Amino acid sequence: MNYNIPDIDFFHKLADAADLQTLPRYRSQNDLHVGSKPKEGYRFDPVTDADREAERVMRALIDATFPEHAIMGEEFGTTGSGPIQWVLDPVDGTRPFLCGLPVWATLIGLNVDGRARMGMMDQPFTGERFWADGQQAWYQRQGVTTPLSTRKNVSLAQAILHTTSPEPLARHPKVNFAALSAATLMTRYGGECYAMAMLAAGRIDICLEYDLQPYDIVALIPIIEQAGGRITTLQGERPESGGQILACGCPRLHEQALSILNG
Amino acid sequence: MNYNIPDIDFFHKLADAADLQTLPRYRSQNDLHVGSKPKEGYRFDPVTDADREAERVMRALIDATFPEHAIMGEEFGTTGSGPIQWVLDPVDGTRPFLCGLPVWATLIGLNVDGRARMGMMDQPFTGERFWADGQQAWYQRQGVTTPLSTRKNVSLAQAILHTTSPEPLARHPKVNFAALSAATLMTRYGGECYAMAMLAAGRIDICLEYDLQPYDIVALIPIIEQAGGRITTLQGERPESGGQILACGCPRLHEQALSILNG
Repeated sequence: MNYNIPDIDFFHKLADAADLQTLPRYRSQNDLHVGSKPKEGYRFDPVTDADREAERVMRALIDATFPEHAIMGEEFGTTGSGPIQWVLDPVDGTRPFLCGLPVWATLIGLNVDGRARMGMMDQPFTGERFWADGQQAWYQRQGVTTPLSTRKNVSLAQAILHTTSPEPLARHPKVNFAALSAATLMTRYGGECYAMAMLAAGRIDICLEYDLQPYDIVALIPIIEQAGGRITTLQGERPESGGQILACGCPRLHEQALSILNG
Repeated sequence: MNYNIPDIDFFHKLADAADLQTLPRYRSQNDLHVGSKPKEGYRFDPVTDADREAERVMRALIDATFPEHAIMGEEFGTTGSGPIQWVLDPVDGTRPFLCGLPVWATLIGLNVDGRARMGMMDQPFTGERFWADGQQAWYQRQGVTTPLSTRKNVSLAQAILHTTSPEPLARHPKVNFAALSAATLMTRYGGECYAMAMLAAGRIDICLEYDLQPYDIVALIPIIEQAGGRITTLQGERPESGGQILACGCPRLHEQALSILNG
């Protein structure tokens, strides 16, 4: 079957449209309407107008250009079906968005036959885009585009570990995070999707995240893989469905970290 | 005595000079030489050329312009003495600097008779400056300057709490962080000095930090106070000497948080 795969320009078009909805609302007292929807294990999940409006404009563009494509989005669920599915998180990191920390992003992923093939992470405040075009991962800022490449051949003892929050650790006592943290050089907290982008950029070596939804991770998978990294669930399986996700700069480090976490 | 107090333009001049040393080294594979110096309670404390060179150029400017002023800096210790003391942290948040997360900053503080009177937090990657001129706190980006103001009259149950890392919590079991976290709306990790700036900007309501040095906090004290916030040690004393520091958007919230942490 001859799939109608978009090129990366269309991802930029989606990101441009999302930016117009998210950026004016970032740190804006007036336009930020904080709602709340229940999510397992969290007491608070802020939903903003930025989330809703950004997903709405991206969906409209996709529906107009690729009406045969399916869409899964954080705010409006799954629509359509078929081999090509867009996976959208209009504001990943709503918490840093609310706190004014520029580590949130718009995530735009594309699954083909259930496998993440292309993706973009768009941070409009810093003016950064990270993407994977199906072959290679790229970074763009101030009009300059450069390839992304993970850091390779880092020993566990020299590795930088990242996780967003210590709170899920208590809910997952079988995952031996403490042992992994003790084996690495340092542990950093609080980076959300941006930490995954920094793994693709060779700044962070190991990212561990819990309780991810598909829209939290699908866009990031090809960015990490096409930058040379490895990303799976803690069971060592494909990460497209989310859950407990481990990303590393290279396969050897991934194997070591997985073994410690499950040990 | 008629003190020779600098105006805020001189702080901008120092920040401009620091930017030329820090920004080109941020995310640069070639120029980042990671050293290590021992620090109590940490296994790893990265010291970069960015730190050293940025402090060097700021010291040179201060020495040339205000030779009678004392200077305390993270990298080169304390020099001079007298009623006016500059307190410099060339790269606060060396860990996010290493990880590529834009929440590090250059901190420039000024103590007069031992009390923090003026300060600037400079983040050159995002192009942001936060400062206090002795009367009022300000924010500048892309040539636009606006006043900073903390969020007032937030109930504890609606408050956003921030701390940089959960690791010091285990070393301070008498500080009841868990109770404070449970009483607030949400807890965010991993913001370093940038979280304090977002408290001044009315985005975060409570910041708790452990084991701070004077150069980690002096520049931020007047920014928080002159934006309407309250900042003290966990003993309720002036925060200029560092230690365990609590900052809140308003005095009432500060009183409530302090009571829970010490309860």
